[in-house]
Amino acid sequence: MIPRLYIDGPLHAGLPAPLSAEQVHYLKNVLRRGEGDELRLFNGKDGEFAATIAELRKKAGAVHVGEKTREQEAEPDLTLCFAPVKRGPLEVIVQKAVEVGAARLQPVITERTVAPKLNIERLQAIATEAAEQCGRLTIPSVGQPIKFVKLLDEWPEGRRLLFCDEAGDDEEEEWGGREGRALPVLEALKNADSNSDDSHDRWAVLTGPEGGFSREERHALRAKSFVTAATLGPRILRADTAAIAALVLWQAALGDWRCN
Amino acid sequence: MIPRLYIDGPLHAGLPAPLSAEQVHYLKNVLRRGEGDELRLFNGKDGEFAATIAELRKKAGAVHVGEKTREQEAEPDLTLCFAPVKRGPLEVIVQKAVEVGAARLQPVITERTVAPKLNIERLQAIATEAAEQCGRLTIPSVGQPIKFVKLLDEWPEGRRLLFCDEAGDDEEEEWGGREGRALPVLEALKNADSNSDDSHDRWAVLTGPEGGFSREERHALRAKSFVTAATLGPRILRADTAAIAALVLWQAALGDWRCN
Repeated sequence: MIPRLYIDGPLHAGLPAPLSAEQVHYLKNVLRRGEGDELRLFNGKDGEFAATIAELRKKAGAVHVGEKTREQEAEPDLTLCFAPVKRGPLEVIVQKAVEVGAARLQPVITERTVAPKLNIERLQAIATEAAEQCGRLTIPSVGQPIKFVKLLDEWPEGRRLLFCDEAGDDEEEEWGGREGRALPVLEALKNADSNSDDSHDRWAVLTGPEGGFSREERHALRAKSFVTAATLGPRILRADTAAIAALVLWQAALGDWRCN
Repeated sequence: MIPRLYIDGPLHAGLPAPLSAEQVHYLKNVLRRGEGDELRLFNGKDGEFAATIAELRKKAGAVHVGEKTREQEAEPDLTLCFAPVKRGPLEVIVQKAVEVGAARLQPVITERTVAPKLNIERLQAIATEAAEQCGRLTIPSVGQPIKFVKLLDEWPEGRRLLFCDEAGDDEEEEWGGREGRALPVLEALKNADSNSDDSHDRWAVLTGPEGGFSREERHALRAKSFVTAATLGPRILRADTAAIAALVLWQAALGDWRCN
């Protein structure tokens, strides 16, 4: 396995690039690599390059950048908005969302969110490592937490939101019977997509905390024209399972897991 | 939240049922419940019952079983065959597979499987807890590990196998060009389902170890008529992510996450 590393800076064939202290530690002590060993590098904009380790010192290092191995590609424009949960499942959400292909991760503080203070720097490091390992050419950004009300108030024009409504079917009558019912994700996305002019829509997925969304939050979401409500099967999913499942289904229906 | 517990024995309205030492500990010390508090009980065959805690002693306890709250329902007949991985992601696979709705979990030792000795009893306990929490009426069983070759040799008649072939597109030519190509899961399942007489087919999903399947294993799988090969998007998924994603897509395409 040839290690892949994200470089925060320009990459050009034939020029050297620096390694951070963390990257030196990772290559030397975790992967047991040394000078002359092969790497792949990407910086989120110039594609992927072959490289060889030129120098591994204590606190820094350098690589020699070789030929470009992959061109930068467009990726689906999918944001994961998620209520943070406790550390274990939170880290699962970040790692898996990156693998499945979310473009950015936005923690959202909902009414029932019970989460410790978020270490965004650590979550960003997990996202970077996941991107390096899964073969992506970009690093999804992890945003600063934002309050639920603010998220909806400042929602960007032209982006749709897939709201995974765990209580979707319990209050069927309230939403006007079958017509207001939350559909399974694939059906909901198919309907939303066929009502749209733009087949390359920007999307986001919203998943809740362990306790779900409050009644007020669900009403506020259902009232927005950019929201598509959907259900994730008949069982109660944990917060991390719901986030992964929603992203997987979006990718399979509208993203880069589709047939070309 | 009313706790749900699995009871390994008969359940009848009006009759008492025993609690194990572990269940007493869980109710008393983890959930802080006491006598008179409400529960929900299921045993995998008689549906779900309301119950109240009658007695919590040190090593045992008892509940009073009330009215039936849900009838037992048929569940999708989906087996997850998975190469065991190291403890963290292994436990994620078991927990999530139960939530997503696998009926049974079958560890498979492949050529590149690098896993510690499996503690099946612990994995079964994780499966039971996940079933209790996600609202299922059954406990998926965790099988004893079986070797890859034996798995294929003893494959039960009438069950199809969705083989998640990470290297699917790399060897396109080998499989006879586009026709032999592994399709994305949704397309692959749609094709397999429309070629089948029985719309309630029995299925299994097979996912590999971190190193993937060997060339020989992939050939052996592709040669079987019960196998449908499919790909899980353009990125390299970790073993646990691949297992969850494959189960989610199966449920959405052919299982109980579909529209009724």
